[in-house]
Amino acid sequence: MRLEKLRNMLSEVDALFLSKPENIFYFSSFFSTSFMYLLIPRDGTPFAVVSQLEFEEANSTIKGFSIIQAKKLEDFDKAFSELQKELKFKKLGIEEDSLTVNIKEKLEKNSEGINFVPVSNIIKKIRSIKSSNEIEIIRKAARIADEGMKKAIETINPGVKEYEVAAEAEYKMRKIGSSGTSFETIIASGYRSAFPHASCSDRKLENGDLVIIDLGVRYKNYCSDISRTHTVGSPSPTQKKIFQTVLNAQQKAIEIIRPGIKANEIDELARELIKKEGYGNYFIHSFGHGIGIEVHEHPQISQNNKEAIEEGMIFTAEPGVYILDFGGVRIEDMVLVTKNGCAILTKSSKFLD
Amino acid sequence: MRLEKLRNMLSEVDALFLSKPENIFYFSSFFSTSFMYLLIPRDGTPFAVVSQLEFEEANSTIKGFSIIQAKKLEDFDKAFSELQKELKFKKLGIEEDSLTVNIKEKLEKNSEGINFVPVSNIIKKIRSIKSSNEIEIIRKAARIADEGMKKAIETINPGVKEYEVAAEAEYKMRKIGSSGTSFETIIASGYRSAFPHASCSDRKLENGDLVIIDLGVRYKNYCSDISRTHTVGSPSPTQKKIFQTVLNAQQKAIEIIRPGIKANEIDELARELIKKEGYGNYFIHSFGHGIGIEVHEHPQISQNNKEAIEEGMIFTAEPGVYILDFGGVRIEDMVLVTKNGCAILTKSSKFLD
Repeated sequence: MRLEKLRNMLSEVDALFLSKPENIFYFSSFFSTSFMYLLIPRDGTPFAVVSQLEFEEANSTIKGFSIIQAKKLEDFDKAFSELQKELKFKKLGIEEDSLTVNIKEKLEKNSEGINFVPVSNIIKKIRSIKSSNEIEIIRKAARIADEGMKKAIETINPGVKEYEVAAEAEYKMRKIGSSGTSFETIIASGYRSAFPHASCSDRKLENGDLVIIDLGVRYKNYCSDISRTHTVGSPSPTQKKIFQTVLNAQQKAIEIIRPGIKANEIDELARELIKKEGYGNYFIHSFGHGIGIEVHEHPQISQNNKEAIEEGMIFTAEPGVYILDFGGVRIEDMVLVTKNGCAILTKSSKFLD
Repeated sequence: MRLEKLRNMLSEVDALFLSKPENIFYFSSFFSTSFMYLLIPRDGTPFAVVSQLEFEEANSTIKGFSIIQAKKLEDFDKAFSELQKELKFKKLGIEEDSLTVNIKEKLEKNSEGINFVPVSNIIKKIRSIKSSNEIEIIRKAARIADEGMKKAIETINPGVKEYEVAAEAEYKMRKIGSSGTSFETIIASGYRSAFPHASCSDRKLENGDLVIIDLGVRYKNYCSDISRTHTVGSPSPTQKKIFQTVLNAQQKAIEIIRPGIKANEIDELARELIKKEGYGNYFIHSFGHGIGIEVHEHPQISQNNKEAIEEGMIFTAEPGVYILDFGGVRIEDMVLVTKNGCAILTKSSKFLD
């Protein structure tokens, strides 16, 4: 079904070479942690070339592919060269966004007169529309993240170190099904909350701190991602105002999400609302990003992306305000685009203290 | 100092373009989780082009670079184009093993008559020799992994699920300084222990199982990696024999590690000893891999690598035997090559039950 969709979009190529693990998983159901590639001709049996290390697992997982075992590194090249001779493809689709210069040169050496056609964008678009099965898995990943968030918020107290908050949240999530975090957990307190990508330090939480908690898990090879911001103790009037500004921008922007709206319109509404309160210069990232097998994938919900949103997309809604030497606030949920609007997949409540 | 070493090896290029986060961290001390690149001319000030999202952190961390802030994606291209005009470089070193086709094409578009020179191997070699500071950090990462291993072994009992063992080990490691795992923890029990890359399932441990525990952490951006194999309850004579075979191969191979020996000689000794016991067909991966900022880096300790080992290298020693429908055994330590031999950085004891 997925392969069929892909092949229908491949009018310009004779075959596809896929080496990005996330794309391989999407089309073959096997997630490689070694080197592996798929060679998918427009018609006929597709091929999976798999390292000896993963052969037995791949062989019991992958259906509908002819599986070729590679014992040594050179076997990968040999398999490609032989398949090219047999299938006689001239135009080969490649993932230009992830294929390395090195592997492309190997493909060139192992084939004659081959032309490369970039297809990353086609695959990104296919992957951005989630199936009902994918939606169920991502819902579960979001629920696990909600439990982690609950645990993190319970743990926040003066004197506790940032990484200790992460430890408690990650432990909770691991015990209820996470296979690991989808990115390094961010517990950014005090001045550190002004850095959007701050991860964790051994800084101790203090009364008056803003604390950004941003976490997510991997579950059955799909990701979740949620952020909340809290204060340690009572918030100041400025902290309250920034929190309300970000929350309002997020909620109003979520209200307009529906099929047909353009990604940049969502971003711009949130940006406008934040600007109106005087914090326009402090919202220094995009409104959101698609999420699925990768924690950041298509579509970007940014000022530059004028694409229309479609039913079945899942992306984050995460405006933020970051003021150097003061602190930051980010509120992030995962939303699923439905027929007439959207559903929020992360359920944690939003309050400041 | 590192930059100087790099520049001394750059006789063939006028400048270097680095976009791999691990290389950027090595030369600038800043680990980007966004897009970022370094442009290092042979002489004069090097440049770091950083996303707005990470600018404040990068600016306070990176010393000796001129830092250029990129607010939008196009700013990255613009900065490159302007620097190329200013510095007039013709031969640009690139990381052919990680640079994507897409970014290389952007570089081509933003410069005239530029020639690309592959330099991944030079950088890999520089990074493979660890400084005393790096050794201290990696020692600590190994100690944290030892604590995780201890916790995992304590948790192994009939009825416990694989991922529950991982949860306890990861929690322990997180609380004592890990910033996350260096790869997805492997708890592979029973028939699953025959799959070298098995990660965790919800399989419950049973009496008589072989259980491979393979885990590691990230600590200050450096990795550790250790494996042990245990049985649930008393081992069978065959399980004992395989364990002794793998342990003996590992110990004998570690004994010959010293500067000057070739990587393939180490691998071959272990392979020969396993073959002698009748398990030659079941040791289906290399003896080891370099470890540092990446969990797998230079040098590969494999049959194909004829390079001489040097003082200051750190790599894993991890022979294994994997028999389908029976189970597997892997024993893995991290070793540091010293002046006259090697030191074992992971300290967990090796016993089967």
